[in-house]
Amino acid sequence: MAQKPSIPKGTRDFTAEEMAKRNYIFDTIRNVFHLFGFRQIETPAMENLSTLMGKYGEEGDRLLFKILNSGDYLNGVDKALIDNNETTRLAAKICEKGLRYDLTVPFARFVVQHRNDLQMPFKRFQIQPVWRADRPQKGRYREFYQCDADVVGSESLYNEVELLQMIDEVFARLGIRIAIKLNNRKVLAGIAEVIGAPDKLIDITVAIDKIEKIGLDKVNEELADRGLSEDAINALRPILSISGSLQERLDALSAILEGNETGSKGVEELKFVADTTVALGLRAELDLDVSLARGLNYYTGTIIEVKALDVEIGSITGGGRYDNLTGVFGMPGLSGVGISFGADRIYDVLNTLNLYPADTKAAAKIIFANFGAKEAEASLKVIKTLRQAGISAEIYPEAAKMKKQIGYADSMQIPFVGIIGESEMADNSVTIKNLASGEQQQVPVDKLIEILK
Amino acid sequence: MAQKPSIPKGTRDFTAEEMAKRNYIFDTIRNVFHLFGFRQIETPAMENLSTLMGKYGEEGDRLLFKILNSGDYLNGVDKALIDNNETTRLAAKICEKGLRYDLTVPFARFVVQHRNDLQMPFKRFQIQPVWRADRPQKGRYREFYQCDADVVGSESLYNEVELLQMIDEVFARLGIRIAIKLNNRKVLAGIAEVIGAPDKLIDITVAIDKIEKIGLDKVNEELADRGLSEDAINALRPILSISGSLQERLDALSAILEGNETGSKGVEELKFVADTTVALGLRAELDLDVSLARGLNYYTGTIIEVKALDVEIGSITGGGRYDNLTGVFGMPGLSGVGISFGADRIYDVLNTLNLYPADTKAAAKIIFANFGAKEAEASLKVIKTLRQAGISAEIYPEAAKMKKQIGYADSMQIPFVGIIGESEMADNSVTIKNLASGEQQQVPVDKLIEILK
Repeated sequence: MAQKPSIPKGTRDFTAEEMAKRNYIFDTIRNVFHLFGFRQIETPAMENLSTLMGKYGEEGDRLLFKILNSGDYLNGVDKALIDNNETTRLAAKICEKGLRYDLTVPFARFVVQHRNDLQMPFKRFQIQPVWRADRPQKGRYREFYQCDADVVGSESLYNEVELLQMIDEVFARLGIRIAIKLNNRKVLAGIAEVIGAPDKLIDITVAIDKIEKIGLDKVNEELADRGLSEDAINALRPILSISGSLQERLDALSAILEGNETGSKGVEELKFVADTTVALGLRAELDLDVSLARGLNYYTGTIIEVKALDVEIGSITGGGRYDNLTGVFGMPGLSGVGISFGADRIYDVLNTLNLYPADTKAAAKIIFANFGAKEAEASLKVIKTLRQAGISAEIYPEAAKMKKQIGYADSMQIPFVGIIGESEMADNSVTIKNLASGEQQQVPVDKLIEILK
Repeated sequence: MAQKPSIPKGTRDFTAEEMAKRNYIFDTIRNVFHLFGFRQIETPAMENLSTLMGKYGEEGDRLLFKILNSGDYLNGVDKALIDNNETTRLAAKICEKGLRYDLTVPFARFVVQHRNDLQMPFKRFQIQPVWRADRPQKGRYREFYQCDADVVGSESLYNEVELLQMIDEVFARLGIRIAIKLNNRKVLAGIAEVIGAPDKLIDITVAIDKIEKIGLDKVNEELADRGLSEDAINALRPILSISGSLQERLDALSAILEGNETGSKGVEELKFVADTTVALGLRAELDLDVSLARGLNYYTGTIIEVKALDVEIGSITGGGRYDNLTGVFGMPGLSGVGISFGADRIYDVLNTLNLYPADTKAAAKIIFANFGAKEAEASLKVIKTLRQAGISAEIYPEAAKMKKQIGYADSMQIPFVGIIGESEMADNSVTIKNLASGEQQQVPVDKLIEILK
């Protein structure tokens, strides 16, 4: 036999059982997105490299999957690039297209390209795979799905309120208990200002983002290494130690940032978003977390992160407000806010907590045993009636031994076997066997539908 | 402004309106697949080129999108390949992976790779995009979706019967009137034998496949060009002119092929499939078409093709039985039968005939006007109640001019606007405005739910 075929490392096949679970997650998210008036779009897997390059930093450029041009791709290529082994510059010559790296840049490209046809505010969602030439490791894949929802063209904080409700609804439907953590870029900027280190905003946020992992002392060490004065570090300490209820934290932060314009604006925004959301009723915990930064260079207002309460795993959803999504494509000043659900981690959480509904199975509800032509014909007629009633049903295609047919049903997790033999044909009935309990009964077809519904 | 960004030629963005229509098609197909006990799988977009190369002929190899290796991809590459401009051999060195070209080869790879975990018969479906570096033209894209359903590991003709019913059900649900054409490779082989040209099977099928396009005379000319004797052409003529009902055609064919073992077996298979399917009740027309070949080198038994009756367009679904899906991966003798729905053509047919249901829209059912904080808060509470009742609802995020808000609702095709002002807040009601009729009425929330349901 030839060598067993395989797939590229970091990619996955999804079996029927896995797909049933994944579809349960995607369908739940999609249904909630629809309920909130978000509209699905899709963009091509391939984008021009000119669209993708320079958008994810040097590291990101390196991790883009590039597609070799068709035809005579060496035509006109300077051979010196090859002789000098300049692989990056050569790649730019022989590859025009790349696979999308995330959904954000293609979305920005979409907005700019179609801006004359788009009505603002534009509420879109997108559920598609992305590709990254990252080193594969546990939980990190080279192909994975992202589920993003964004509103662009509106600065209103009601959009934040809607997104938080959407997060709450998705995880309530999935049965996952969560905490939503909020922060605001303006609060971080205000903090940097009031502790006397306005130019150290990035250093501060990079360091304090690690507080949960490494603790306050190590964070302070890192802040010192990054050139923060002792005074600034001492001034920061009480801010990082703010505790109490959400309301108490907001009040404490408000007092610390009083008089600082940017910081106070940030607190005001946080208060509005939190108060309005809480007033509408939220099942999730809602927390303020001043150490939350998440790609700070991108976010300009609200910052959102979601943690599962019952499983130790990183953030399972995140997002925030940005002010310059499309500037890089020549359309500045478009504000937006968005969230992204981490489907792979949600999949792991549901598995760990065993939260999939009992009917999250790929299987038909009933399979009819096959005893030969006459019985099969009678079975197919009943199957047709079942399908008309919306019941997934099938026939075992061969008149194999009963044991084999039952074994098939069992391994496919089909809960019922239908049997039509002489006696059932005589009185237009079906014998239905419950594979879990072993019970069986002979019933007319309308009763069969009732049992299976 | 920078140059307007664009996407690679032959690829498409799908807007919210287009996605709503596409999802209608995919959901219909998916639901029918489930109803018949087929299970969804997914395979990665990228496959190893060793899996893809040599499976689609020389032309196909050329049309594969190849992905440049990451890192130092020139390492160890013989520079002579570059100097001699041997682009094909060089590509094989600098690219290990390619984008999938269809769903069949990845499916075969999946079956072989997972054969120890798969229970036969294996009924799978797959709905995913494929990529081909074809010259783009009207109706031909470089990225497009395929929707395939196959049963492997069973030679039973009941699988054909199930697939035909599935086709019938999908198009009945979509409201597209169709004719299903059947043929059988064994019939074609039998015909080649009885007209005395058994070695000309491929030539005959390639030529007669064009009969609808170019007519019998031209087909006969081509047959002569391909070396068929006058006797053979004369013997073929009455076969190509078989007419009458399905039953009459089958009888005529049966008479012609009497005594020819292969041909008679083919007729017998056709009869069983047609009779069993018709007995179960079929809304589609079912025809025999001895000129139908469809990639003959692949199919070994039943051949299936579907045409729309009310739109001039090519085949909208096709398929057939094959006996060696996985042989190329070292697992010979696995028989299967499958069909593939042409989603892009079905999309065009539904558009041409205007067959999309009225609710195939991306839009929310109602949008609430925004008059400021107090009204917005009251609106959000009502919206929450609507969503709990499963009604898609949203709020206009800014307290903009009423005209602008109504204009937004209009252009989004949202049918109703909800209005909550002083008077509605006073008595817990909502004014609902029907944008199509202009009518409006002030109603309590439970009545609102009733109207929108």
